[in-house]
Amino acid sequence: MTQLSEAKKGQPTPEMQYISKKENISINKLISLVSEGKIVIPKNINRDTYPCGIGENLSTKVNANIGSSNKIEDINLEINKAKLAVDYGADTIMDLSTGPDLNKFRKKIMESVNVAIGTVPIYEAGVNTLNKGKKIIDMDSDDIFKTIENQAREGVDFMTLHCGINKQTVDKINKTNRKMGIVSRGGSFLASWISHNEQENPLYENYDYILELSYEHDVTLSLGDGLRPGCQSDASDIAQIQELVDLGVLVKKAQENNVQVMVEGPGHMPLNQIKSNMELQKTICNGAPFYVLGPLVTDLAPGYDHITGAIGGAIAAFCGADFLCYVTPAEHLTLPSLEDVKEGVIASKIAAQAADIANGLKSAWAKEDEMGEARKNFDWEKQFQLAIDKYKPRFYKNQCPLDDDEMCAMCGEYCAVKLGKNNF
Amino acid sequence: MTQLSEAKKGQPTPEMQYISKKENISINKLISLVSEGKIVIPKNINRDTYPCGIGENLSTKVNANIGSSNKIEDINLEINKAKLAVDYGADTIMDLSTGPDLNKFRKKIMESVNVAIGTVPIYEAGVNTLNKGKKIIDMDSDDIFKTIENQAREGVDFMTLHCGINKQTVDKINKTNRKMGIVSRGGSFLASWISHNEQENPLYENYDYILELSYEHDVTLSLGDGLRPGCQSDASDIAQIQELVDLGVLVKKAQENNVQVMVEGPGHMPLNQIKSNMELQKTICNGAPFYVLGPLVTDLAPGYDHITGAIGGAIAAFCGADFLCYVTPAEHLTLPSLEDVKEGVIASKIAAQAADIANGLKSAWAKEDEMGEARKNFDWEKQFQLAIDKYKPRFYKNQCPLDDDEMCAMCGEYCAVKLGKNNF
Repeated sequence: MTQLSEAKKGQPTPEMQYISKKENISINKLISLVSEGKIVIPKNINRDTYPCGIGENLSTKVNANIGSSNKIEDINLEINKAKLAVDYGADTIMDLSTGPDLNKFRKKIMESVNVAIGTVPIYEAGVNTLNKGKKIIDMDSDDIFKTIENQAREGVDFMTLHCGINKQTVDKINKTNRKMGIVSRGGSFLASWISHNEQENPLYENYDYILELSYEHDVTLSLGDGLRPGCQSDASDIAQIQELVDLGVLVKKAQENNVQVMVEGPGHMPLNQIKSNMELQKTICNGAPFYVLGPLVTDLAPGYDHITGAIGGAIAAFCGADFLCYVTPAEHLTLPSLEDVKEGVIASKIAAQAADIANGLKSAWAKEDEMGEARKNFDWEKQFQLAIDKYKPRFYKNQCPLDDDEMCAMCGEYCAVKLGKNNF
Repeated sequence: MTQLSEAKKGQPTPEMQYISKKENISINKLISLVSEGKIVIPKNINRDTYPCGIGENLSTKVNANIGSSNKIEDINLEINKAKLAVDYGADTIMDLSTGPDLNKFRKKIMESVNVAIGTVPIYEAGVNTLNKGKKIIDMDSDDIFKTIENQAREGVDFMTLHCGINKQTVDKINKTNRKMGIVSRGGSFLASWISHNEQENPLYENYDYILELSYEHDVTLSLGDGLRPGCQSDASDIAQIQELVDLGVLVKKAQENNVQVMVEGPGHMPLNQIKSNMELQKTICNGAPFYVLGPLVTDLAPGYDHITGAIGGAIAAFCGADFLCYVTPAEHLTLPSLEDVKEGVIASKIAAQAADIANGLKSAWAKEDEMGEARKNFDWEKQFQLAIDKYKPRFYKNQCPLDDDEMCAMCGEYCAVKLGKNNF
C-alpha cells in the first residue's frame, strides 16, 4: 500500500487529509493529482512525521541538505543544522553524510526532526566499500541493494537513486565536449563504476527490484540527475537531456507500479534556459514533481550561491518546479556552518514565496497582503512576525533609537508613507 | 554640447571611445545607439570621471545608494561606503543624503570616487526648507530650481527628477485603492506639495527649464517613478502605468532637445509581471535606458531584500532593464552598514552577470568559461580572482585544512570532479 495506490482507488489517506487542510486544496483534487503522479507525499510507512505534499497546485517546497563529509564529522552540529533548517521553514531534510559514521548520523537525525528525510544510499554503499579498504569502482552491487533495503526499513522517506545513468549515456558523455564532466557525486560513482567494470549500472539494470523495495515501504523515488551540468556552458547539453529522456521512461514505470516518484534537475544553467527545461521535464516525465538543485544562474559567485540559486529557483518554481533544494553560501567550498544553513534556507524560502505569488497561490498572496497592511500601519511587530526571518529585521530596526514608531532610520522624518498618511 | 548632440552629428567623444574599447562594441554602433537615446553616458561636463555607458548592447550596470539620513549622519562612514561599493563593482553612486549637512557630504563624496554620481535634488530642496523652519509642503519652487542648477554646476552626473507626477496622477492615486499609497520619497514630497498648494508640480510645469539646465552641463536626467508600487498588490496599477505614460512624453522631449535621459522603474512587483513592465517601458519611452529599483519579488523578506531584489533584477535585466539600483539587507529598516553595502552590491552584480549571460553578452560568457576551466583544474587561486567577491570564497575554502588541493571540505575524497578526472 502506497499513497499512490490508495489515490488510484480514490481512497484518501490520513496524510492526504492533513495536506488537504494545510494547503487549502480540496481532498478530491488532491487525490486526483496524487493518483496521476503529479503530487508525491514522501512518507515511509515505518516512520511517523508531518506529511508534506510536493507537486502541482501546492506551495513550492524547500529541502535542506545536511550531513558529514569525511573531512568534517560532528554529530551535534549536523543535528543542530537539521533543527535550525526546519525552524526556518525547510520542508524536508536530506542527510548527505559521507563520513565514516554516517549510519549513526542518519538514525540520530531521523529522531531529531519531524519532517520527511531523504538520503542518497549510494553514499553509504560507497563509504562501506572504502571502509573495507576497497575503491568506489570495486563497489559490490549487492551492497547497494542491501543499503537501499536497510534504509527503507529504517524509515527513510525519499531516496535519490541515479537510475538514469547507463552505458549509453556514459558513452555519450565521453564523446561530447563537456567542460566540467560529471559533478554529481552519485553520478560520478556510478559512471566510474560502469566504465571500469564494463557493466551496466545496477540501479538501471535492476530497476524492478528498486520498485519492489520502494513499494513495500512507500519510499518516494527521487530519480537523480547524475549528468546535471556543472557549469554554465554545459547546460541543456546532450548528456543532460539524454538522461532526462531515460528518466522519463523510468518515471512511467514507477507510476504504473504504484511507486511515488519525482525527478531531480539542474544544476548550473543560464536563466534563459530554465523555462524550457522545466516544461520539458513535465512533458517527458509525465507530470512528475520536479526537484531542482538551484539552478545556479552564474558561476562567478562562490560564497554567494544561495543568491545565484535563489534567482534560478524562483524562475524554476514559477515555470513548473515543485521542490527547491537549498544552496548555501558554502557550496563549492566547504560544508555549511549553522549560519550558512540559515542563509540557504531563507534564500530558498524567498524563491519559493516569489514563485508562489507569481503563480497566483492564494495562501502566498494572503501573507503579502498582510505585510503590506502592516507596513502601511507601521505595525513593526506584525512585520517581524510575517517575515521569513523573524529576528534579523527586528535587530536592524532597533539598531537606531527613534522619536516615534512611524518611521525607520533609513528615511527618518522623510518617510514617504508617513508623509502620505498625513497629507492625503 | 552633450554626448547626445555629438552622437547625432556622428561625432565620437573621448567618453564614447573609452566605452567602445571597454565594452568591446564598435564605435559606430555605440554612436548610433547614443544618438537614438538607447544608451546614455552620465557625465557632467564639469566633472572628471571614468565614463560609464548604460543601455542597449552594453553590460548591465549597478548603482549603489549611500548618504546620511536625519537620524544617522557620519561623513567618513558614507565615504567608506561609496569607496567599498566601487571596489566591489558598483558602476555609479547615488548620494541620497537627507541629513542637515548634505551639501558638504555630496562634495566630499564626489571627490572620493571616480564614477558617475547621481542625486535627487528635491531632497536638498526639502532639507533646506525644513532647515528654515518650514514644512515640505511649503517648499518654494524657486528653491528647487536653484538646487538643480547648483548641483549641475558642481558636477552631478545624473539627477533623479520626479517630473512625471502631476495634478492628474495625484488625483488618480487618490481615487484608486492603492494599498501602500506613495513610497517614493521624492514622489511623496511632490504629491503632498501638489495636493496642499493646489498647484501643478514645478518639475512638470517647468520641464523646459530643466532641459535647458541639463543640456548646459550634460546632466543625464533620470526621470523618477514617484508612483512606483510599494507592495506586491499595487504592482502595475493605474497610477504606476499612468506615470510611465507621462514619462514617455517627457523622454521624447528630452531626446529631441539633446538631453540624455533614462527612466526609473519599479519597485515591488511579482516576478510574472516583470517582463511586460520592461517591454512596456521600452515602447513607451522610446528605447530609453531603464533603471530599476529592484524589482522586489516578495515583501516577506525584510533583512534580505538584497536577495528579493537580485531575483527581480536578474529577470528585469534579462527582459530589457539596463541599470540596477542595488538594494541592501537594511532596506525598509535602517541605513545600510558597510557590510550591508557590500552585500547589496554583490547581489546586484550577480543579477547583472546572470542577465548578461542569458542575453548572450560575450564578455560575460568569457568569465563563466574561465571559471568553469578553473574549477575543472582545481585552480583555486584563479577561482578566487574571477569571483565577484575575491575574499569570502578564499576564507571558506581555507577554513578546513586538506590533504591535497584537488578537493574541498564539502565532498572531501568523494569529489565528483576528482573521481571523474581519475577514471575517464
